[in-house]
Amino acid sequence: MSVSHASVHPVVEEVATTDGGGGGEQNGVVAIPRVRMKDIQGMPGTAGGLSLRVSQFIFAAVAIYMMASTNDFPSVTAFCYLVAAASLQTLWSFSLAITDVYALLVGRSLQNYRVVSLFTIGDGVTSTLTFAAACASAGITVLIDNDLESCDQNHCVQFETATGMAFICWFTTVPSFLLNFWSLASR
Amino acid sequence: MSVSHASVHPVVEEVATTDGGGGGEQNGVVAIPRVRMKDIQGMPGTAGGLSLRVSQFIFAAVAIYMMASTNDFPSVTAFCYLVAAASLQTLWSFSLAITDVYALLVGRSLQNYRVVSLFTIGDGVTSTLTFAAACASAGITVLIDNDLESCDQNHCVQFETATGMAFICWFTTVPSFLLNFWSLASR
Repeated sequence: MSVSHASVHPVVEEVATTDGGGGGEQNGVVAIPRVRMKDIQGMPGTAGGLSLRVSQFIFAAVAIYMMASTNDFPSVTAFCYLVAAASLQTLWSFSLAITDVYALLVGRSLQNYRVVSLFTIGDGVTSTLTFAAACASAGITVLIDNDLESCDQNHCVQFETATGMAFICWFTTVPSFLLNFWSLASR
Repeated sequence: MSVSHASVHPVVEEVATTDGGGGGEQNGVVAIPRVRMKDIQGMPGTAGGLSLRVSQFIFAAVAIYMMASTNDFPSVTAFCYLVAAASLQTLWSFSLAITDVYALLVGRSLQNYRVVSLFTIGDGVTSTLTFAAACASAGITVLIDNDLESCDQNHCVQFETATGMAFICWFTTVPSFLLNFWSLASR
């Protein structure tokens, strides 16, 4: 009877480490590394993730403000597109920042498969649009500044600052996208 | 004695399914889904992966050819950058196409952690550069065509074709990058 008990015991332990199920002392010990592995700083629902969202929001907002401070940006399609893409980015980042604040306040993990899929697709789309807008604006500003050398007739400083802000905004969206995609693939 | 044997047996089975180790009939059954999961079409060393590489090479080469067929492209920095980025893309895609052909001929899997890491970083860098070049060129062509309406003085058709080819080239690099990244994260 004691032999049977000893050989059944490892089976329960094996199930507890792979599924995270079971109860009592074993579950308490197993739960800590699971949370650490899944909630890398920068993922949704972490302080790192919230700081990334806030950075994205700030840089996108500054890009819009700098572009809108010139009166002739609507004459160039790429600059209008930058404003549109940065606006979408601010809305998306603001929404996810609110979600992160909520998750941090109530201590809830956002590592649900559907939620992470949605965040990954959203981050992929917004970061691609922001990067495309930044590159298109960079092409135009380099054309005006270096190729045509007509900065005295244009608001080069504002255009270049807005483009730079859009690039920095993209740099802060890429970690969000890659971490979400990694989290999606590694489950 | 027979009770003890029955309870030990599931433990061995559990080890075989998680590590893929062990021997005999169980290992043979487990090995088939593992190979199928790892070699998704489009990953390095598959026919899908080779076709993606060939597509990338062709579209990047056509983009360079179309841009180089105009005599005034060096006057615009973004167009020079497109040629540079597409050249890097052709070299990278050609190298990996050769690697894929070799892997297919000798029947060797390229699912080594270091190799996949290298491919992921390379794909990430080249696809980002190609996309940036395509977006910058798109900004310029839209400026010339729609905003300034001076297509009669410029080779708009060639510029726009080259930009379009660069975008299609980017569309074929993204699956390579995402599949490699997925394969890296899911091991």
